[in-house]
Amino acid sequence: MGKVTVAPELLSNIDRYWRAANYLSVGQIYLLDNPLLREPLQLAHIKPIVVGHWGTTPGQNFIYVHLNQIIKQYDLNMLYIAGPGHGGPAIIGQVYLEGRWSEIYPDVTEDDAGLKKLFKQFSFPGGVSSHVGPTTPGSIHEGGELGYSLSHAFGAAFDNPDLIVACVIGDGEAETGPLATAWQSNKFLNPITDGCVLPILHLNGFKISNPTVLSRIEHEELEQFFFGCGWTPIFVEGDDPMIMHGKMATALATAIEKIHTIQANARDNNDNQRQRWPMIILRSPKGWTGPKMVDGLQIEGTFRSHQVPLLVNAQHPDHLTLLEQWMKSYHAEELFDANGKLIPELAELAPKGEQRMSANVHSNGGLLLQDLHLPDFRDYGVPVFAPGAEKAEDVFILSKYLRDVLKLNLAKRNFRIFSPDETLSNLLGKVFEVTKRQWDDKEFAADEFLAPSGMVQDSMLSEHQCEGWLEGYLLTGRHGLLNSYEAFIRIIDSMFSQHAKWLKVTQELSWRKKISSLNFLLTAHVWQQDHNGYTHQDPGFLDHVLNKKLALVRAYLPPDANCLLPVVDHCLRSRHLVNVIIAGKHAGPQWLTMEQAVAHCAQGIGIWQWASNDADKEPDIVLACCGDTPTLEIVATVTLLRHYFSDLVIRVINVIDLLKIASPLDSDQALSNAEYDELFTQDKPILFGFHGYVQLVYSLTFQRTNHNMLVRGYQEEGTISTPFDMRVQNGLDRFHLVQDAIDLLPQLGTRGANVKQIMKDKLTEHTQYINQHGQDLPEVQEWKWSDHR
Amino acid sequence: MGKVTVAPELLSNIDRYWRAANYLSVGQIYLLDNPLLREPLQLAHIKPIVVGHWGTTPGQNFIYVHLNQIIKQYDLNMLYIAGPGHGGPAIIGQVYLEGRWSEIYPDVTEDDAGLKKLFKQFSFPGGVSSHVGPTTPGSIHEGGELGYSLSHAFGAAFDNPDLIVACVIGDGEAETGPLATAWQSNKFLNPITDGCVLPILHLNGFKISNPTVLSRIEHEELEQFFFGCGWTPIFVEGDDPMIMHGKMATALATAIEKIHTIQANARDNNDNQRQRWPMIILRSPKGWTGPKMVDGLQIEGTFRSHQVPLLVNAQHPDHLTLLEQWMKSYHAEELFDANGKLIPELAELAPKGEQRMSANVHSNGGLLLQDLHLPDFRDYGVPVFAPGAEKAEDVFILSKYLRDVLKLNLAKRNFRIFSPDETLSNLLGKVFEVTKRQWDDKEFAADEFLAPSGMVQDSMLSEHQCEGWLEGYLLTGRHGLLNSYEAFIRIIDSMFSQHAKWLKVTQELSWRKKISSLNFLLTAHVWQQDHNGYTHQDPGFLDHVLNKKLALVRAYLPPDANCLLPVVDHCLRSRHLVNVIIAGKHAGPQWLTMEQAVAHCAQGIGIWQWASNDADKEPDIVLACCGDTPTLEIVATVTLLRHYFSDLVIRVINVIDLLKIASPLDSDQALSNAEYDELFTQDKPILFGFHGYVQLVYSLTFQRTNHNMLVRGYQEEGTISTPFDMRVQNGLDRFHLVQDAIDLLPQLGTRGANVKQIMKDKLTEHTQYINQHGQDLPEVQEWKWSDHR
Repeated sequence: MGKVTVAPELLSNIDRYWRAANYLSVGQIYLLDNPLLREPLQLAHIKPIVVGHWGTTPGQNFIYVHLNQIIKQYDLNMLYIAGPGHGGPAIIGQVYLEGRWSEIYPDVTEDDAGLKKLFKQFSFPGGVSSHVGPTTPGSIHEGGELGYSLSHAFGAAFDNPDLIVACVIGDGEAETGPLATAWQSNKFLNPITDGCVLPILHLNGFKISNPTVLSRIEHEELEQFFFGCGWTPIFVEGDDPMIMHGKMATALATAIEKIHTIQANARDNNDNQRQRWPMIILRSPKGWTGPKMVDGLQIEGTFRSHQVPLLVNAQHPDHLTLLEQWMKSYHAEELFDANGKLIPELAELAPKGEQRMSANVHSNGGLLLQDLHLPDFRDYGVPVFAPGAEKAEDVFILSKYLRDVLKLNLAKRNFRIFSPDETLSNLLGKVFEVTKRQWDDKEFAADEFLAPSGMVQDSMLSEHQCEGWLEGYLLTGRHGLLNSYEAFIRIIDSMFSQHAKWLKVTQELSWRKKISSLNFLLTAHVWQQDHNGYTHQDPGFLDHVLNKKLALVRAYLPPDANCLLPVVDHCLRSRHLVNVIIAGKHAGPQWLTMEQAVAHCAQGIGIWQWASNDADKEPDIVLACCGDTPTLEIVATVTLLRHYFSDLVIRVINVIDLLKIASPLDSDQALSNAEYDELFTQDKPILFGFHGYVQLVYSLTFQRTNHNMLVRGYQEEGTISTPFDMRVQNGLDRFHLVQDAIDLLPQLGTRGANVKQIMKDKLTEHTQYINQHGQDLPEVQEWKWSDHR
Repeated sequence: MGKVTVAPELLSNIDRYWRAANYLSVGQIYLLDNPLLREPLQLAHIKPIVVGHWGTTPGQNFIYVHLNQIIKQYDLNMLYIAGPGHGGPAIIGQVYLEGRWSEIYPDVTEDDAGLKKLFKQFSFPGGVSSHVGPTTPGSIHEGGELGYSLSHAFGAAFDNPDLIVACVIGDGEAETGPLATAWQSNKFLNPITDGCVLPILHLNGFKISNPTVLSRIEHEELEQFFFGCGWTPIFVEGDDPMIMHGKMATALATAIEKIHTIQANARDNNDNQRQRWPMIILRSPKGWTGPKMVDGLQIEGTFRSHQVPLLVNAQHPDHLTLLEQWMKSYHAEELFDANGKLIPELAELAPKGEQRMSANVHSNGGLLLQDLHLPDFRDYGVPVFAPGAEKAEDVFILSKYLRDVLKLNLAKRNFRIFSPDETLSNLLGKVFEVTKRQWDDKEFAADEFLAPSGMVQDSMLSEHQCEGWLEGYLLTGRHGLLNSYEAFIRIIDSMFSQHAKWLKVTQELSWRKKISSLNFLLTAHVWQQDHNGYTHQDPGFLDHVLNKKLALVRAYLPPDANCLLPVVDHCLRSRHLVNVIIAGKHAGPQWLTMEQAVAHCAQGIGIWQWASNDADKEPDIVLACCGDTPTLEIVATVTLLRHYFSDLVIRVINVIDLLKIASPLDSDQALSNAEYDELFTQDKPILFGFHGYVQLVYSLTFQRTNHNMLVRGYQEEGTISTPFDMRVQNGLDRFHLVQDAIDLLPQLGTRGANVKQIMKDKLTEHTQYINQHGQDLPEVQEWKWSDHR
């Protein structure tokens, strides 16, 4: 491709459009009134609290106007992701300039009155925040917490072959871990079936008050770094606007032509080898076109322009003049007409309709969302002839179902599974019967299940990337599921938080359509870590998730495979939620027939009559369980209690949907207080075996009537050991639980004391046996409920 | 420096030592007995459950023996960090070979009997886990969760000018975000006052079941990537052991000589400019020297050697022979004597005493730990003439104290402050009066507070790096504090978990000496986000931290500056804990004199008599508060309640040390039940204003008697707004709290109903005012407790 030239007249118009955008940005930060400075600026026109960020804004405006141009020039389908945190004043202004803001928020009209509203709402109580976020049309990315823009961009590009995702990355954000590894995403992109990402690294040199790493290394190092990451960088560097306009127009045209060449070759010749895609490195001054010097200090081109470069208030009256001069330097009178509307010859520059980045349909993914084709999960069930008689690996059973979900939706390419190299380890290998892992680099003979077009994103060891890719995929209207070791999902705690916040805000915006739920399948869980040990034990993601708005999150802990299947089916059909599913991958007892499981899942919580003996009676004690391991031990506890105390009336409750026990004030999923009391009684002792940290059950049930409850769960004990020993070390085994039950039942008196001693002896026997054999007592290994009925 | 050659005889001995190490590794994975194969191998000699990881092991053994050699050759002080997760069999074997394991664990002797114990304990219940972790002498790094090795290495190297930290990084780990950005750490290392890190990237090509990214890109890309990251890579590639020994010896000698040249030049000429430090890229087969083919499938050099490359059990009897052949290929009879001890000419190869990496004193940092010199915090207090009469910025007050902590310990260089570019934003800028931010790249004229020798690590925007550096610094016996925005500390949730787990395990190991506590100062907290908004609101780190063993964690929420000072002083003196301190950076009311504050902090919780009117009486209601914002609103609520209901007896309790309210069964910090009941009563209503998510208070107090409690805190509402409006949106403002109190006091009857209506009217007035003015009601802005006394 040769050097691309752009007509000088066009460049001049681009510059004027840029000035209009910059003007609107400054106006948003400062002005409460007098938006077009039709009268002399006074302090009364300034917001009482001036907050916002100028530093990144002119650079983003620069990028945006040039992207607009390139969209029109090459008839592109382009999505814009604003990585730098505080780009709000830029993008909101751009969205307004192309008419989209007024379409979505009709009270903000394209005139003086609308401008006044546009300015006032910014960073104003009840208004819009200073980041590009859910309220900004065109955005699929919240710029508040940094690090995820490039992962989101790739997630959006997967299976969208005609889409180009322009992803602006700040040089501050580029220092975060998640962003640093996201450059490698180009090894997981198929030039035939996927779209492409055009990263635009914006080197403006500074963060809040520090220089940035990538802006200060040698030019040669910077180039090598990106070559080394597999990209072809194109540099646009300088500070003279008109020269920079020419460079940027040329760079973008070069990049787009290279993208088109790559895609045409790949698609014409079925050549899906990895490509060195182009990227742009834009080096421009922070706070470009803003105040150069204020009170003797340099502002433009330094960290001092990060936020508000000019304090304008009663204490700094002289700054009012500086602000007015600054705003007038954009010559708004040449850009907006007498009514305050952008003049036609500039409005002409923006793309039209859905080609505007602010109206790109992929940015409102719910509009594109199609239901998945789901097989009948009942076809995958395990035959259960008696509760607890047979064992199965729950996740392995699920894998056959997931394989067929992939298969049924393969033609549409709208369902993907994500994992940090754990899909096989998590026993989901069946999925590779119908698709592969997406991998677009060299392959060796001994490799397994790799392909450039694979629908399983499993080949990068980064929870951050998996989560970021999946979020980008969901936000653009597709479906997915992330499988991970339970403990290491904590790596993306804060990413989950940001996504949950996105869901909360978008559900309050009627124009934002609901997207598919974010589904976590967590396995390799805390209770079986034969060779991984203490570092791999953390069931606290549940606590984290349930701190968020309970209307937006769900937590499911199916006790067996037949319960896991309907739970996953339900989650894949759900919308706009975060579903956390905890399931075991080791062989465990199967309790319910498919028919029973469907009924139990529909309730989410219920009495297991086959394990209870409380028909027609108030129980003496309620034994509750949530999670596969607690369920096993609680049921085993029941056999011991009934063996030693045949007169004891026991009720067994299993909880699948954890929100059932939450307060009905906090969650619509929760049982009413009457229902809860009916199940748990108002005062009988409850012994609750829980999968995770006990604190969660205590906090969920604090507002219930019955506080006569002891919860057992993981208490940060145990490392490499057998499954049963893990339970012993945390007091969640049958021999400890029987003792707990006896403590809760003082009426057992001496009988109780005697049985407690038997249990203590059992624990001693366990310890001796395991130390000698490295395995659990045969009576524990071979234990089956069905033998004890 | 010229090409370094190593004598062939030495290379041959190095190879034999490597074989001994590999032999011990295989033995640990498989054998329960017959450790030196003195009799034919039988199934009875094999562990009942064979778990462990072979893949990374021979490569790490290879590196370790060569590092031993280079330590002796150049008389080095070297620490070893094993990044790849499952390197246990390698490093444990190496530690044993150099005699260190038996020094620490004397029951594991250097003979046949000791070998048997060494083998059995590995990945065996009650034994040692398969990672290099706390139980492994010489380690400061747990290899369980991947991503932090290089950050830890730099943390160890800071202010240890004579130390070289050899950091082995797996190509799997290299794909994680934290590791990907940690390569940039070389911009923050001073060649004069710091030691150095020698990264050894181990490209063995595979993760669990996938290839690795860095092993499959072009050689040129790999080289460019590391040049771009500022390193000088030295390649060691191949699979022929004897050739590879020569290459590795040469490469390491080249690297060490380059390091010495750099350091000598820097220190002789006071030249602290950034250096292109050397690193090693070792490309060797995964599972090197292990089984080549098993059951027709290639094992060595593929992902199949990741864990146990050969299943040896009753179902695979023929594999027993393969295992025996494999083990015999190392010719243990040439390496160990008749008693099972390594032969002297090989034992000779390891460094001696503390020069052994397993005995490096920096790896047991508590041995080096010296108390900080701390100024008298009382000297920094704020004069408080009446509670709530004056305002101050708590963190700014603290910054003067921290400045002097830095100053007093500057000569020893053993106290650092870490932050992701937020130290100035968090109002800690006073520290720059005595030191700078460490930055070792280009400086521009407008930069502020940068220096290669700065003791504030604030110039990289990565919470992962800050946390990893600080952990490495603490683990090697120094002190530090991390300041961060409260919400974004969630980014390192899982790093905190791993550190807490490390502390728990090490406190159970008598030979591990206690280290300085990990101190988090979290500010820019949820309750004031004028320009950041919803994404910057997450107080849940407290919940996360308090899920861990409460003996190891503390949470402090000082309500004002005079309380913050003694809290920080206390934390800096504490050992082997994680301290989380939440403090405000915006001007807030000051309540206690320094004398009162010291007494209050010593108790951690207490009645604020000056705000209460319950002298000699049982209160009608308890108003409790924890955190600066809830304290303000609870105190304001008291003024309203006392205004409207002068006969109401109110007790005000302030909580600084959150564990005071936890169950005494879980924490030694907690109040006894009698003390708790004395404060909170057994049945009077409690209205608790809490800084964070209400769930935490509910879970902490579930086991207390008094359940008549309503907690108000952050409920995921509010974005950009005023401070007071944030409280209103979350129901933590005085006007809502008065209504809550009335609901808890049905005896108020009609009087209560009338006041509730007044409060509702106030809220309407608030909403109208803020929408119009963008500011809080003057009566709220100007409110002072002292005016209402």
